[in-house]
Amino acid sequence: MRHIIACLVENRAGVLAHVAGLFSSRGFNIESLSVSPTENEAVSRMTLVTSGDDAVLEQIRKQLRKLIPVLKVNDFSGQKYVERDLMLIKVAAPAAKRTELMGLIDVFRAKVVDVTQNDMVIEVSGPNAKIEALMDLLSPYGIKEVARTGCVAMLRSRQ
Amino acid sequence: MRHIIACLVENRAGVLAHVAGLFSSRGFNIESLSVSPTENEAVSRMTLVTSGDDAVLEQIRKQLRKLIPVLKVNDFSGQKYVERDLMLIKVAAPAAKRTELMGLIDVFRAKVVDVTQNDMVIEVSGPNAKIEALMDLLSPYGIKEVARTGCVAMLRSRQ
Repeated sequence: MRHIIACLVENRAGVLAHVAGLFSSRGFNIESLSVSPTENEAVSRMTLVTSGDDAVLEQIRKQLRKLIPVLKVNDFSGQKYVERDLMLIKVAAPAAKRTELMGLIDVFRAKVVDVTQNDMVIEVSGPNAKIEALMDLLSPYGIKEVARTGCVAMLRSRQ
Repeated sequence: MRHIIACLVENRAGVLAHVAGLFSSRGFNIESLSVSPTENEAVSRMTLVTSGDDAVLEQIRKQLRKLIPVLKVNDFSGQKYVERDLMLIKVAAPAAKRTELMGLIDVFRAKVVDVTQNDMVIEVSGPNAKIEALMDLLSPYGIKEVARTGCVAMLRSRQ
C-alpha cells in the first residue's frame, strides 16, 4: 500500500542521513522524498512516499518517533488530505507539434516556462495521478528530461 | 553561496542514505532536498539546495561523482535555469479576513485548495523568492502549517 508520511524534524546536519538509513536498513525504497524549511527556522518538514509491507512500515514509524531529532510523525493513510507534486518536463516540440502540445497543456492547466526551436519545458502541479497522466500523454512526443519535486501533503481541516 | 545541485541516481534502497551521509559527515546542512522518479524507472532525480564553503562543496561534488549509484551531477550555479518550489500553507482565515487574503492570493497566482470557517490552505508555486515573499505576507494572519516540496530546477536550453 502507498503511504505518505510527513515528519517534522530538527533542521540540522545528519537528521536526513539518520532517517534515510532507517528505511534503507530494512530494504524499504523511498518513492519520493521532500525536505524543506517550515515557518519555524529550527524545524524542517520531511514528506516521504513509500510502499511496502504495512507491518514493517509500522515498525519504521515507531522507530522514527523515537529518534530525538524527529518531533512529529503523521501517516496520512486513511485520512482526508490534499496532495501536491510539481514537475518540470522537457519535451521535444518542433514547430509542427506545438499547437497540439499547447492543447494538452491547457487541459492540464500546465504552463510553458521555456521554449526553443526544438523543445519546451512545461510546469505542472497537482496530485501524483495528474502528473503521471500528463507524463504518459507527453511520452510519444519524446521526453528529454524530468524533474519532479515529489509529493507534499496536508490534512484537510475538520469543519 | 547558494547552490542547486541535481543528481541522477540509481533508484534503489540505500542511495539516499549514502548521499545524505556524504553531506552530514562534513557538517553541510541540506536546505531543501527532493528525490523523485524520472521517465526512466531505474533512475531517480535528486535536487538539493545547500549553501556553504565553495571549496568543501567542490569536494562533495567530486565524491558524489565517484559514488557508483550516482550517474550524473550538475551544479546549476552560474548557469541559466528554471527553478520551482511548491508550498501548501494553512493560514488563519476568519470570514472578516477572507477578502483581504483572496487579494493576496490573486497577486501571487496562488490557489485556495481547502477552506473551513477558521482557516484556508493555499497552494503556490514558483521560484524560492516568490514562495518566501508570500510566506512573509501571510505571516501576520497566523500561519498554522507549512509543507514545501523544496526546489527543483532545469537548465534552460540554448537556442
